[in-house]
Amino acid sequence: MIVEYHGGAFYGWQWQPGLRTVQAELERVLSVLQDEPVTPVYSSGRTDAGVHARRQVVNFHTSKPVDLFKLPFSVSSMLKGDLAVVKADIVPETFHSRKSARSKQYSYKILNRPAPPTFEKGCVWHIGVPLDVVRMQKEVKSFIGLHDFSSFRGANCQASNPEREIYECELLAEGSDIKFRVMGSGFLQYMVRIMVGTLVQFGRGNLSDTSIKEILAAKNRKFAGPTAPAHGLYLDWVETKEGERQ
Amino acid sequence: MIVEYHGGAFYGWQWQPGLRTVQAELERVLSVLQDEPVTPVYSSGRTDAGVHARRQVVNFHTSKPVDLFKLPFSVSSMLKGDLAVVKADIVPETFHSRKSARSKQYSYKILNRPAPPTFEKGCVWHIGVPLDVVRMQKEVKSFIGLHDFSSFRGANCQASNPEREIYECELLAEGSDIKFRVMGSGFLQYMVRIMVGTLVQFGRGNLSDTSIKEILAAKNRKFAGPTAPAHGLYLDWVETKEGERQ
Repeated sequence: MIVEYHGGAFYGWQWQPGLRTVQAELERVLSVLQDEPVTPVYSSGRTDAGVHARRQVVNFHTSKPVDLFKLPFSVSSMLKGDLAVVKADIVPETFHSRKSARSKQYSYKILNRPAPPTFEKGCVWHIGVPLDVVRMQKEVKSFIGLHDFSSFRGANCQASNPEREIYECELLAEGSDIKFRVMGSGFLQYMVRIMVGTLVQFGRGNLSDTSIKEILAAKNRKFAGPTAPAHGLYLDWVETKEGERQ
Repeated sequence: MIVEYHGGAFYGWQWQPGLRTVQAELERVLSVLQDEPVTPVYSSGRTDAGVHARRQVVNFHTSKPVDLFKLPFSVSSMLKGDLAVVKADIVPETFHSRKSARSKQYSYKILNRPAPPTFEKGCVWHIGVPLDVVRMQKEVKSFIGLHDFSSFRGANCQASNPEREIYECELLAEGSDIKFRVMGSGFLQYMVRIMVGTLVQFGRGNLSDTSIKEILAAKNRKFAGPTAPAHGLYLDWVETKEGERQ
């Protein structure tokens, strides 16, 4: 399935005792619909609490037939519209959402104006002071390529290799809407949010004596900016091994 | 002022006894901030209950100095983020939001997929059955030009002249997002929503033996489709007499 969800309605992807997580809710709802325990439900990766997804790739195994037509209606209504099944298909038994993931794109939305958001409450990071977008756009290019992202990973990141390759990375500004977009092979814990938090520091004029290049070279979290809030971040899509952008 | 508001939070623009309308709320809040009665607050036009605005033009008169810097912060917080002051300026005493309005643009957003909206609840018309966008795009062009819009006005419309000129009109589709955009000199009551409701009938395949041209020529409301719901409609911007697109 390709699923879309509002991060604010869940405590992240991963199952946690007693919390409303995306994984737990999908397992609950699919178990009801299939009339058998459906667990685990796999995704292309765990999104953190508060992070949104537009086209998360999800798969599960069931011994009973699935009504592909009814599925979007049933799941959405059972999850109060906080999650939508955008697409559903039968895939080969060997398919695995995480293992099939080849690359991903994330976006981060900032609203840069004095007044807070009217239409996108909880779906955008509101920054009231004017940001120097030109400076941010100059720095953003340095993320592209294969780098050691130790400066841009959370303290509890479990990945053994801190190297990741970024294929595309840009910052677009249209009026008060600023959008950061990054596409890469994979991402470390909090990586995108620390990238954004650091760019915003440049935008505020706070890091005038350094650069993304230097921060990458330092391989030290302390040199980067703060972690941007989760509610501006979106998992846009996942490319699976079959070469398809889902 | 240029103001943005969420239609779902107000009973339309116009003051009504005991109801939370945009005009009443702006008058209340501005009277507090200016410490004198601020009434009436004028807009470029009355939006109906539920209709959103991105850049509504609003003006008021006050005998006291206005703190243009603080205004966006104060108004947004006093109105719980349902209305945002996007811009504020001192204008000549003769300025009048409605009389200065030369042209306007409206947009209408449709989400066309089985699952209901996740991110834009209350901000988009959800249509679960697939629409024939090509047919809708063929018909939409017939709105352009000077026409008698009697078939596309509400039963209680007070305008003496049913003629209006449409400068631009299009229907854009990107995946499941459909956006109708119309720019014109002015609009009759419910006109944009009836235009959309009629186009959707074509999209559903319900009006195969007629056309927008014929419905316009009939000059009769009964020949057009139903009025689309208010919560998909946005007043995008207003061009004032000074030739400026606000």
